[in-house]
Amino acid sequence: MSGNTYGKLFTVTTFGESHGIALGAIVDGCPPGLALSEADIQIDLDRRKPGQSRYTTQRREEDSVKILSGVFEGKTTGTPIGMLIENTDQRSKDYSNIKDQFRPAHADYTYMQKYGVRDYRGGGRSSARETAMRVAAGSIAKKYLKDFHSIEVRGYLSQLGPIKIESVDWDQIDQNPFFCPDASKVAEMEEFMKALNKEGDSIGAKITVVATNVPPGLGEPVFDRLDAEIAHALMSINAVKGVEIGEGFGSIEQRGSQHRDEITPEGFLSNNAGGILGGISSGQDIIANIALKPTSSLHIPGRSVDVHGNPVEVITKGRHDPCVGIRATPIAEAMLALVLMDHLLRHRGQNGAVQHTIPVIPGSVK
Amino acid sequence: MSGNTYGKLFTVTTFGESHGIALGAIVDGCPPGLALSEADIQIDLDRRKPGQSRYTTQRREEDSVKILSGVFEGKTTGTPIGMLIENTDQRSKDYSNIKDQFRPAHADYTYMQKYGVRDYRGGGRSSARETAMRVAAGSIAKKYLKDFHSIEVRGYLSQLGPIKIESVDWDQIDQNPFFCPDASKVAEMEEFMKALNKEGDSIGAKITVVATNVPPGLGEPVFDRLDAEIAHALMSINAVKGVEIGEGFGSIEQRGSQHRDEITPEGFLSNNAGGILGGISSGQDIIANIALKPTSSLHIPGRSVDVHGNPVEVITKGRHDPCVGIRATPIAEAMLALVLMDHLLRHRGQNGAVQHTIPVIPGSVK
Amino acid sequence: MSGNTYGKLFTVTTFGESHGIALGAIVDGCPPGLALSEADIQIDLDRRKPGQSRYTTQRREEDSVKILSGVFEGKTTGTPIGMLIENTDQRSKDYSNIKDQFRPAHADYTYMQKYGVRDYRGGGRSSARETAMRVAAGSIAKKYLKDFHSIEVRGYLSQLGPIKIESVDWDQIDQNPFFCPDASKVAEMEEFMKALNKEGDSIGAKITVVATNVPPGLGEPVFDRLDAEIAHALMSINAVKGVEIGEGFGSIEQRGSQHRDEITPEGFLSNNAGGILGGISSGQDIIANIALKPTSSLHIPGRSVDVHGNPVEVITKGRHDPCVGIRATPIAEAMLALVLMDHLLRHRGQNGAVQHTIPVIPGSVK
Amino acid sequence: MSGNTYGKLFTVTTFGESHGIALGAIVDGCPPGLALSEADIQIDLDRRKPGQSRYTTQRREEDSVKILSGVFEGKTTGTPIGMLIENTDQRSKDYSNIKDQFRPAHADYTYMQKYGVRDYRGGGRSSARETAMRVAAGSIAKKYLKDFHSIEVRGYLSQLGPIKIESVDWDQIDQNPFFCPDASKVAEMEEFMKALNKEGDSIGAKITVVATNVPPGLGEPVFDRLDAEIAHALMSINAVKGVEIGEGFGSIEQRGSQHRDEITPEGFLSNNAGGILGGISSGQDIIANIALKPTSSLHIPGRSVDVHGNPVEVITKGRHDPCVGIRATPIAEAMLALVLMDHLLRHRGQNGAVQHTIPVIPGSVK
Repeated sequence: MSGNTYGKLFTVTTFGESHGIALGAIVDGCPPGLALSEADIQIDLDRRKPGQSRYTTQRREEDSVKILSGVFEGKTTGTPIGMLIENTDQRSKDYSNIKDQFRPAHADYTYMQKYGVRDYRGGGRSSARETAMRVAAGSIAKKYLKDFHSIEVRGYLSQLGPIKIESVDWDQIDQNPFFCPDASKVAEMEEFMKALNKEGDSIGAKITVVATNVPPGLGEPVFDRLDAEIAHALMSINAVKGVEIGEGFGSIEQRGSQHRDEITPEGFLSNNAGGILGGISSGQDIIANIALKPTSSLHIPGRSVDVHGNPVEVITKGRHDPCVGIRATPIAEAMLALVLMDHLLRHRGQNGAVQHTIPVIPGSVK
Repeated sequence: MSGNTYGKLFTVTTFGESHGIALGAIVDGCPPGLALSEADIQIDLDRRKPGQSRYTTQRREEDSVKILSGVFEGKTTGTPIGMLIENTDQRSKDYSNIKDQFRPAHADYTYMQKYGVRDYRGGGRSSARETAMRVAAGSIAKKYLKDFHSIEVRGYLSQLGPIKIESVDWDQIDQNPFFCPDASKVAEMEEFMKALNKEGDSIGAKITVVATNVPPGLGEPVFDRLDAEIAHALMSINAVKGVEIGEGFGSIEQRGSQHRDEITPEGFLSNNAGGILGGISSGQDIIANIALKPTSSLHIPGRSVDVHGNPVEVITKGRHDPCVGIRATPIAEAMLALVLMDHLLRHRGQNGAVQHTIPVIPGSVK
Repeated sequence: MSGNTYGKLFTVTTFGESHGIALGAIVDGCPPGLALSEADIQIDLDRRKPGQSRYTTQRREEDSVKILSGVFEGKTTGTPIGMLIENTDQRSKDYSNIKDQFRPAHADYTYMQKYGVRDYRGGGRSSARETAMRVAAGSIAKKYLKDFHSIEVRGYLSQLGPIKIESVDWDQIDQNPFFCPDASKVAEMEEFMKALNKEGDSIGAKITVVATNVPPGLGEPVFDRLDAEIAHALMSINAVKGVEIGEGFGSIEQRGSQHRDEITPEGFLSNNAGGILGGISSGQDIIANIALKPTSSLHIPGRSVDVHGNPVEVITKGRHDPCVGIRATPIAEAMLALVLMDHLLRHRGQNGAVQHTIPVIPGSVK
Repeated sequence: MSGNTYGKLFTVTTFGESHGIALGAIVDGCPPGLALSEADIQIDLDRRKPGQSRYTTQRREEDSVKILSGVFEGKTTGTPIGMLIENTDQRSKDYSNIKDQFRPAHADYTYMQKYGVRDYRGGGRSSARETAMRVAAGSIAKKYLKDFHSIEVRGYLSQLGPIKIESVDWDQIDQNPFFCPDASKVAEMEEFMKALNKEGDSIGAKITVVATNVPPGLGEPVFDRLDAEIAHALMSINAVKGVEIGEGFGSIEQRGSQHRDEITPEGFLSNNAGGILGGISSGQDIIANIALKPTSSLHIPGRSVDVHGNPVEVITKGRHDPCVGIRATPIAEAMLALVLMDHLLRHRGQNGAVQHTIPVIPGSVK
């Protein structure tokens, strides 16, 4: 497949440029019988929607999704689900000045080298606006996982620049504009972002996503390991530069006697593995972290070259997120849900019919 | 595809269990005209081969590869290349005692939950022995990339448990059993490993892989970004728990003004991006780090359960690497080479014919 | 991938039900730089469009296509091309009576067995209306093949029920409502169809598609042979029950001395192979025939069962083509173009860079 | 994927040249728990094996298969099954004379144009010898389908040149060297083949394959229709020039009132559809016919050109089947089994969990 389709049995194909007419997606392979409405999908889209706080881009998009097929009398039919979101608040002239320039740390130069042409308006296809359709598709997967398997996929901001969270209260996450689960850090984050805006600079962030109640057995060794596909899906999100499963880079300094998650009939005694062993889910929570680089669009001038190779000084106008990480939580949730959905169907197809009597270990010991 | 095939145009499909008759692979999509012999492949296999130093498993395997098809009169023909490595030094009885037990942090439990059955001898398919065929396939990709495009893929051990390297001298890497590029750290590593062996414990490690002279334009947004597929390929290696591109998790605390790699006609002024922008190669070195967990096979007893769910104490006999990271360098090189090879062909197919005149920026400023 | 995507490098994914809100497609992998407008695509859509003559369904659909992405300043950018056609002339009540019945020779029963639910309005996803997006996608492939490689894909009706054409005049095809290349047969076809309509019955047909100026070398043995993928693509068209390449079923009674297409420096002396040898294009015209069954929607009562398994008598109301074959020519052209486009890109990617000096045989001797 | 892999969930990847060291295959995605031995596979290989009668090539190959992985204690484990067949009776010098010539109707010319090089010994990869591994893989699929779902896949020779069978007695098929189900035609076929051999000519043939007891619901509209994938799989067999499902080309002249298979609670009243409606299995027998061209290797001289474009007269030495169709029956069975196996797993994955109460129509009325 070309680059715009994700998945093998549950596939998502997307199209759309930042300043084009519309964004769209086709979700293929969704089993029939799932109750689904536009409102179900809109919930997640609204969480990702721009212009919701002073800490994100001021571009205002309703991001209201239309379902064009695949749902009949309120339920999925098993046929492909077509979805559309129209763009409404483009201000393309903001970008005319960078038509012939390559913004540092943007995809301008690489797209030109690959394609020889680019829709420079708002970054075209390389804009994070593309992720809206991922969130829409992911919300279908999330609903199926929850309705039919009680699997829940959730995420939060675990670090904003230098500010690390110290506790996770799931109820806090939607109470602040940062998806921050630690109420005690929100004020600090607000101060930090205000100062950053003044300087016209941007900052990186870390997001954590967790899937609970995942049955053991999902994942296809060797190349399609569950962790490998999670890494693929999460690294495919704009601005992501690193992915960890469980203890991740912390495992480098761990001893085997410390890292191994011992097992008892009551459950695993720890979860350094992040819920995956040998590329297959173990029944423990699946835990992944991603590192997002700071936004590349700054009001601080930077050195670059133009399409003729001449040196230029670039200042990015337009409206941008000073921290792309802030709105990335629903996107990361969506991608994790897509991976789990696809592997659930693949497992059901290839091994789901196996009858065996291995007792299931009840996740982690509480 | 099922889980044992990697790639879209340059595909690698592998089979084989740790204590089975043989390991094998089919490399499909290799362009014709590449000069290739078994000796070319053996070089990399020998670098990964077990039993080469007191710091790796004492299992002795010649790992001598046979090419069964796809090469005629010394050159590839464009037809699939079949390769075979016979297993010679199995000691399966070592494993009979864990037949009915789940070793903590191993794939024993998850394989049983997925398949309802497993070849428990040496971990069967989940053994790192499977990576031998990745190295064989990767060496074909490495040779094509070098012979036809002067692209070089190399790697080294950048951290062994607490010991971090401080300098990179490419000539040192094959001068010590650790693939360590910093001669000043080798003695320390040897001491550390000796102590570890005494304790019967194991340790994690960090590997860095670098691809030089990669042309700009490789990678297929959106889901098949080059960095996403590198993350997929590297995370699919046994024991890997984290992947970073360029600055990776370091970008979380960076400012945009600091992270963005400014561009001049003479080249990029830094490489925080690790050679990839918008999922497409920029022409700078591609740099990735991976975190490997400590080996799960220990001589220190651990708590677990048996196939009936009863608590047991597990001691892993058999011969193991106290640090899987030590032999992982050639494997990581192989996987990076496979990704680049596949994307080179995909780019050539979809966009390679484009004529454009965008000047190429000469990588990083030296 | 799930069933609604075709192709590997040049992929087409479609959605949409006969009586849904809209039909849509995403064409991914189209190289950049192709001049493309909605008008270019509309030409083929209008050829397939219903309600154009008394010999096809009276449903009137403008089938006007919108391009939503992937084209910038009149040229493709290499990013996915989103297309949409809104449904306007649904008369769903026509179908309420067959809500709980399975029309013989329709997909009603099999969809219910597969999905447990179906959008019965106009056959939902199983309606030939789905082919509109194939034609739209195919016209992009046709334009690329013609503009960049002078490859032309054309087709015609070669048999209508008992009426076989005796000569092929390409200029005649668009001069009559049957895509018939033999002007001397048109009156006979008109008479035949009138009589058929009176009886409320339907008839089968045969379509021939031809690709000229195809370069040698397209096709990937062994499973992805060019002829195998053409068979796949053509058999995937609604109502198609048979596919032939070149002499097809005629080869059964041929001797080898008669079938083999002898070669001279001036060209091949015959084309029993239909332009494909060993699954790879030879440079001769690619010729394929397809057999289309008679429309299943009749005004003549037929025996069937309802969703409860009780016997019922079915009469299909609604508006239908008495011969689906009549409008199938542009669809068959589209599918052949999609196969050639995909294989052109695959060949370019995997083998296109090969330098060799084998003289090219100039197709067939004229 | 490249051309040497078939299937999505149940995948088969093959390698090997006619006169190379060995042929091999990897079957990936086979569910665990299938009882499987080399003997099970050998049965089908022996049916295809050359040198079994005076009517097939005199090359003698044991074609004895080795299972190298994926089977443990007599049962499949869910991991990839590696298989190997060593070549033993090559006589490569037979071919040295055609090293620089293109045999008419062979793949010599097209392989050279595609790859710029070829293993000319016995046709290399383009030899029908490649089909041995298809038969081996297919026999695994056949066994799974039969053991777990009572689905049976069988075939026979339905026409040898001008000689058409008039009745089908399944018990006769393995009683003669032609896979002919009509005992009354065998003597005629023997006479015909003797005469043909004297002339040094070859002849075409028609094979029919039937799958019984297939559950309704297999097949993924729209592009991955079951009939489309059957056409793909069967057309990918060497020498096949046409594929029909059910009534096939006969449907062209049928009326809808005649073609439609009426339904009663006791079953379908006919099977013009060949067991597939809307691309999905209906529960009736799946019936497909294929047309095979006459062998291209003749002892009668033919006109061609050499690699320099000069005219030459070609006589094929070496040992060949005067009718490739004779040994094609087990190959066609294998390919049909592979399609059904893959779609069984895909259906189970995507829709198999659907609970519905549509009564199942008991196939055809007997």
